[in-house]
Amino acid sequence: MPLIQRLCIIGVGLIGGSLARILREKGEVGEIVGIGRGEANLRRAVELGVINRYETDPVGGVAGADLVFLATPVCSIASVLARIAPHLAPGCIVTDGGSVKGEIVATCEALMPAGTFFVGGHPIAGTEHSGVEASFASLYQGRRCIVTPTAATDPLALHKVVRMWELAGSEVVLMDVEKHDRVLAAISHLPHMVAYALVNAVGGYDRFEEGILPYSAGGFRDFTRIASSDPAMWRDIALMNRESILEMMDFFSRYFAELRSLVDGEDGAGLEDFFARSKEQRDAIL
Amino acid sequence: MPLIQRLCIIGVGLIGGSLARILREKGEVGEIVGIGRGEANLRRAVELGVINRYETDPVGGVAGADLVFLATPVCSIASVLARIAPHLAPGCIVTDGGSVKGEIVATCEALMPAGTFFVGGHPIAGTEHSGVEASFASLYQGRRCIVTPTAATDPLALHKVVRMWELAGSEVVLMDVEKHDRVLAAISHLPHMVAYALVNAVGGYDRFEEGILPYSAGGFRDFTRIASSDPAMWRDIALMNRESILEMMDFFSRYFAELRSLVDGEDGAGLEDFFARSKEQRDAIL
Repeated sequence: MPLIQRLCIIGVGLIGGSLARILREKGEVGEIVGIGRGEANLRRAVELGVINRYETDPVGGVAGADLVFLATPVCSIASVLARIAPHLAPGCIVTDGGSVKGEIVATCEALMPAGTFFVGGHPIAGTEHSGVEASFASLYQGRRCIVTPTAATDPLALHKVVRMWELAGSEVVLMDVEKHDRVLAAISHLPHMVAYALVNAVGGYDRFEEGILPYSAGGFRDFTRIASSDPAMWRDIALMNRESILEMMDFFSRYFAELRSLVDGEDGAGLEDFFARSKEQRDAIL
Repeated sequence: MPLIQRLCIIGVGLIGGSLARILREKGEVGEIVGIGRGEANLRRAVELGVINRYETDPVGGVAGADLVFLATPVCSIASVLARIAPHLAPGCIVTDGGSVKGEIVATCEALMPAGTFFVGGHPIAGTEHSGVEASFASLYQGRRCIVTPTAATDPLALHKVVRMWELAGSEVVLMDVEKHDRVLAAISHLPHMVAYALVNAVGGYDRFEEGILPYSAGGFRDFTRIASSDPAMWRDIALMNRESILEMMDFFSRYFAELRSLVDGEDGAGLEDFFARSKEQRDAIL
């Protein structure tokens, strides 16, 4: 028997579509109903075999689902849940894929009717592309997925969400929401802030020293790929994880200032040590 | 007739080895003599067919060469040239691959005996690997190579060096040395400083929030790959291009501070605009 009888995916893009693909491939889902605002994208998702059928109205779409996956932009997760919550089937589990958890988990838990269950989640996976066309079954293979139970989380609902991500190929890690938001600020949100600022700085310099970006080699391109990420999504993340991001930006600035002072002071030994410590840590995650 | 009769490559690693491979492949060099300090690496270079023979003594090695390519670490280019200069054949052209040009070009030009010619160069190519095993014939294919003539540069020597890089597959750009050093500070040296500082900051945070680096997804890995670069090489670059690097670090810090203030002020429109400007510029160099 499949893990999920009727899965409802709200937002059939890279994240939602990739989960749908792997669960269908594994035979772990009876039926997948896709919900979204763009009907062309939903039709394409049916053509591609990612979902069985679609609804553009989330209220009707969630009817009879035993699991709902909220894969919408991070800022609309709570508002979408507010709309569907009264229409969830008894026993229904709702989980999400938002990359900020604190605010979302608190709001969503409070919205759930009695006898339905919310479990916050965040698969650490993605590419710079979006939309159902960009989705693929192995997106989650070998990647971590953070699931964030609270004191209010139902143990059976937690178990089912964990099992779903394991079946998708992820290594599931349980973490409290505050730690999740600090960890993500460090390993994802800060690097994005740095990359966006770097490209703007080099591009800004470009204006009075015309055409320097084309000289950039592979290193710069790799380094700045994440600056191609969706501006609206990152606006929302910056707003929703503001405190942790500010903390990490200031933390980074202290290291950057230390390095500046080593360069300024022509401290060869200090520079080599600074670079070697970084290389050692970077090589450890290769 | 090949472009070069006897090419002497001092430093047979990724940069020197890759140039040797492509010029042999194209039949544009009569003989290649490799010079280096590590005899095992030089023997391997002969076995791999990268060079014809080797010498460990640079003075003897440059005898009879019509072109010498200095592919040693950036800080030793001038000192190696000081040693070989009195032994160069009449008409010999010396060029280098150093990623900082101002100091090197001025010092090297002054060292050249009458009737021999120096031309500064910098192929914008590389990987995070080093050594002759890492070299490959297509390293320079489609990449820019900056050649930095001065008022003292011999036109025929310049022409030969440009032709050599074109035969290696590069798009050659002529640039004055000061502009080269500012451009490289922007597109390469600054990103390395940022990446090294970022990994140290995240790693430093890691110490009191154990084991967060393994949660990092592909974005972080791509973004920080350049922090795996050789610490000694980057120490030398930071010391040799100090002024331009400090200028760019300060330029970056202004943009980073602007972004911090947008996050702090919860300025959604400003954040989206900041990210969109960056994305637009990044996408233009894809």
